[in-house]
Amino acid sequence: MDLIEKINNSIRDVEDFPKKGIVFKDITPILKDPKLSAEIVSQFCETIPENTTHIAGIESRGFLFGFPAAMKKDISFVLIRKKGKLPYKTVSINYALEYGTAEIEMHVDAVKPGDKVIIHDDLLATGGTAVAAARLIKAQGAEIIGFSFVVELAFLNGRKLLEEFTSDIKSIVKY
Amino acid sequence: MDLIEKINNSIRDVEDFPKKGIVFKDITPILKDPKLSAEIVSQFCETIPENTTHIAGIESRGFLFGFPAAMKKDISFVLIRKKGKLPYKTVSINYALEYGTAEIEMHVDAVKPGDKVIIHDDLLATGGTAVAAARLIKAQGAEIIGFSFVVELAFLNGRKLLEEFTSDIKSIVKY
Repeated sequence: MDLIEKINNSIRDVEDFPKKGIVFKDITPILKDPKLSAEIVSQFCETIPENTTHIAGIESRGFLFGFPAAMKKDISFVLIRKKGKLPYKTVSINYALEYGTAEIEMHVDAVKPGDKVIIHDDLLATGGTAVAAARLIKAQGAEIIGFSFVVELAFLNGRKLLEEFTSDIKSIVKY
Repeated sequence: MDLIEKINNSIRDVEDFPKKGIVFKDITPILKDPKLSAEIVSQFCETIPENTTHIAGIESRGFLFGFPAAMKKDISFVLIRKKGKLPYKTVSINYALEYGTAEIEMHVDAVKPGDKVIIHDDLLATGGTAVAAARLIKAQGAEIIGFSFVVELAFLNGRKLLEEFTSDIKSIVKY
């Protein structure tokens, strides 16, 4: 069984989450399988360009595979968090959600000009949060050289928005 | 330089976070150092009893070192999250904060009777969240066989509360 099949078999469909009519792809069963989890980290690492200096993980499921991959590739890991969670000086950005707005931030010294950053989250849906993360990182002078996801909800076409930053957009399984 | 010294040198003190008068121990500089991060994972793994079946990581910084350690030890990782974040059926618990209350939850099938669980977070402060996590896990019939933290604020004496569950309470650096 290949990796995509194994992930497909592990992911749990949860109906009506986060709201009525949405079928949520629940990755938590994967986390209970350490061998499959390690395979995902390895697959992720294979797609990380050699000149990458940082992986930026989006809170909080983006921390799960992002940080192990950064350690394995011997590069830095930085946190993108919801407003108010990071203790040191931050830069932040507002972005639109379907209803209302959200705000994410990172430490002001998380990245600097010349850094080459991969943005990672477990799931690519509409792409709103990943775009906001990319803008935040670019505003600090760093370069976005890739996006990486475990799961991509291709029918939502979030990929389209990310192409503003780079054509290097990877996901392991697509729905 | 030993591991404790390296961690001490990396942790950043942030004054008045999350509120006036508190000096927060910011671990984010550690995450930018993949070699130091990997050493912390290895040290954590050395303290995990061989009969452990699960590491339960407390959202969201508890995901950072908890999940790599679980993969390295070839055991399951389960998520303890704030209310409303987990998609599938959950069990939850309320607990008191200094002002007001908080609620955490985990998936109903995250652990089962007979499982032997280590609870992990990056920081042990007053211990309130770790105690709530332990109660939640015990209520599902699983056994708490240890607590593990990267940093312990020993002067807050959170350890005292955790002794209700197990005497196996580990932290790498203490303040």
